[in-house]
Amino acid sequence: MSRIEARYLIETPFDVAHACDVMAGEQSCGTFTRLAAETDELRERHAARVESIELLDSVTTPSLPMPTRPQPDGTRYQRARVTLSWPLENLGPSLTTLMATLAGNLYELKEFSGLRLESVQLPDAFAGAYPGPQFGIAGTRQLTGIGQGPLIGTIIKPSVGLDPQATASVVQQLLDGGIDFIKDDELQANGPHNPLEARVDAIMPLVHAHQQKTGRKVMVAFNITGEIDDMRRHHDHVLAAGGSCVMVALNAVGLAGVSHLRRHCQLPIHGHRAGWGMFSRDPLLGMDFAAWQTFWRLAGVDHLHVNGLANKFSESDASVAASARACLTPLFPAAGPAHTVMPVFSSNQTACQAIDTWRAMGGSSDMIVTAGGGIMAHPGGIAAGVRSLRQAYDAAAQGVSLAEHAREHRELAQALETFCP
Amino acid sequence: MSRIEARYLIETPFDVAHACDVMAGEQSCGTFTRLAAETDELRERHAARVESIELLDSVTTPSLPMPTRPQPDGTRYQRARVTLSWPLENLGPSLTTLMATLAGNLYELKEFSGLRLESVQLPDAFAGAYPGPQFGIAGTRQLTGIGQGPLIGTIIKPSVGLDPQATASVVQQLLDGGIDFIKDDELQANGPHNPLEARVDAIMPLVHAHQQKTGRKVMVAFNITGEIDDMRRHHDHVLAAGGSCVMVALNAVGLAGVSHLRRHCQLPIHGHRAGWGMFSRDPLLGMDFAAWQTFWRLAGVDHLHVNGLANKFSESDASVAASARACLTPLFPAAGPAHTVMPVFSSNQTACQAIDTWRAMGGSSDMIVTAGGGIMAHPGGIAAGVRSLRQAYDAAAQGVSLAEHAREHRELAQALETFCP
Repeated sequence: MSRIEARYLIETPFDVAHACDVMAGEQSCGTFTRLAAETDELRERHAARVESIELLDSVTTPSLPMPTRPQPDGTRYQRARVTLSWPLENLGPSLTTLMATLAGNLYELKEFSGLRLESVQLPDAFAGAYPGPQFGIAGTRQLTGIGQGPLIGTIIKPSVGLDPQATASVVQQLLDGGIDFIKDDELQANGPHNPLEARVDAIMPLVHAHQQKTGRKVMVAFNITGEIDDMRRHHDHVLAAGGSCVMVALNAVGLAGVSHLRRHCQLPIHGHRAGWGMFSRDPLLGMDFAAWQTFWRLAGVDHLHVNGLANKFSESDASVAASARACLTPLFPAAGPAHTVMPVFSSNQTACQAIDTWRAMGGSSDMIVTAGGGIMAHPGGIAAGVRSLRQAYDAAAQGVSLAEHAREHRELAQALETFCP
Repeated sequence: MSRIEARYLIETPFDVAHACDVMAGEQSCGTFTRLAAETDELRERHAARVESIELLDSVTTPSLPMPTRPQPDGTRYQRARVTLSWPLENLGPSLTTLMATLAGNLYELKEFSGLRLESVQLPDAFAGAYPGPQFGIAGTRQLTGIGQGPLIGTIIKPSVGLDPQATASVVQQLLDGGIDFIKDDELQANGPHNPLEARVDAIMPLVHAHQQKTGRKVMVAFNITGEIDDMRRHHDHVLAAGGSCVMVALNAVGLAGVSHLRRHCQLPIHGHRAGWGMFSRDPLLGMDFAAWQTFWRLAGVDHLHVNGLANKFSESDASVAASARACLTPLFPAAGPAHTVMPVFSSNQTACQAIDTWRAMGGSSDMIVTAGGGIMAHPGGIAAGVRSLRQAYDAAAQGVSLAEHAREHRELAQALETFCP
């Protein structure tokens, strides 16, 4: 395939075919007044093409405010699913120019009362130009020594306010509780009261001592979100201290920064999606997770946050499930590496969601499940909280109900009683 | 000031004070279940504070879809303008963590059917940590030798499809036409049919020859959007070739990348906002330009796109005017450098908008006006198109109507007849 394909959900009061032509023109070689230099040959070679239009329903109220000149009463706003394609030659395999092309000026076009990027399919040249995830699922399992089942993890809380020593003491409790994975909060990067390097230095000796004792190396995702040079230095510090993961707030750092980090990095990159609501909460604006994650997987993250079922946020379970499955879908069906990454479930996670999450993943256990209260607020303590999650996912894997499995697993029974009324 | 302040427009079916507390908790040290480590002292030092709440109107339909559990019939969704503050100590002067904090998870909170970041006020420590614009308004005027009035510019079209030689021949026509400023399209960065370095090599000799002849150095903004190392190399190439500006698609590259480029850069950075519609088109989601531009000015851009009055897109004139004025507003009222940048008007610009644009700018002429058809489609040709824009802005500066000024300025008269029916 030598063309880039992108599918959009659109809504327009204009003729749909016309609106799509405007969109294709704006994002390729179209000009308002056709210029002398805009030859037929140039258009033939470089114009974006409308590949397909599938009409959906129409509505009487525009989803996004329309420009000052009002539409006449009774105007219907037609929704449609459209696929556009671009010659790879227009931009070459560049993620940044891809972003400016597929998710650029077109959002502002006055022809549309709704426009959302749903999915992206790229030519194999992108797989050649970007290394993609360095560790992915297999590498993460290898580093943690956890061959099967979800990695059970948690986030250090309170999000901000702890100093390095206080953070380390929370980590020690979690290590003692038998956890697989710990991460910084996205608000905690390199603040003056808890500098990254001091935090690493306080935590890593505990991780090593725990490994000496148990043979298991717990993965700690240190939040190195920051300026390019700081991210590199902080990555090097985590690496030198024997750490096994770095975390980045993707939308805050941006594509070029994450892609740069990946080329320097020797550790898995844990991708946090803070700010994702801005891209996604209006169903007729922004983009679907399926589109968004394409960029970040190619840029090279190894783990991607997908929220969780029955979360504390506004996202539906169906959307969470679709996001998780997207992480496991190969980016280049025909050729190139699979680029799959580990979905990270979070937000209000307890033993209760295990069966549904398992199903949402299509039976795959290649995931990180992070729980806060589900571990910390377990009546049996942290260790019991961790065990209750493992037991719940064991039940899912064995095809047994949580209630049945709880008969012989006390921590799960306690969790069900406490968290799943 | 040692606290970060951010103002939001919110909409919620819940008690507004409660919803604001959730927001403040989510973005600072709040946890679902209060933990042992979350002491009163820690909360006192690190909690985000709700500084003020101004109730606005209420609506009967939520602006954003709400979670599955429906609100009862008759629920009202209250809108309010709220200001939150954070101690600088939580994050330190970091733009990336600032983004993850002010524009992070809070967009997904189920308490809100609308949430938009309107403005940001930062402690002076940020002015110390980030260099801000290197050239800004004064530097851009100095490099172009244009001491007063707007810089009259254009975008090379067709956006994509021209090879370096064909691009250069468009540039030659524009130079001959007496233009001040030329920019690449945001879709044209370093594609295989028009590589950045070959384009620079084809164009810069023409710019130099023109300077030899006329004494005026036309500023060409070369689109170096790309990976970090490529941007650095391409910047160096533009610099070595005697160029005087580089352009970056800000949202595509991201904050860390632009900030990194700024520290390496010896040329003005022309900031393109492709993708901005995604952040802004839903009035109850995303952010205002006033908030967005704070990040990019601190990161160090010198010019910022603000669309144009009577544009071809969906944005209102009032919004465009507010964006332009935001570029001229000091970031740190009390201290620190002003960080003002040149607003760039574009989209459907001709002589017609001059008076209104002048007024929108509060009488300042510190702007770049880029016109496509307004120059290329002028009946007298490119030179006449450029002159018509200068004449129109001269009229504005002199407080004369366009019609009156056109009596003695033929190119303006032709422009009014052609473009302003």
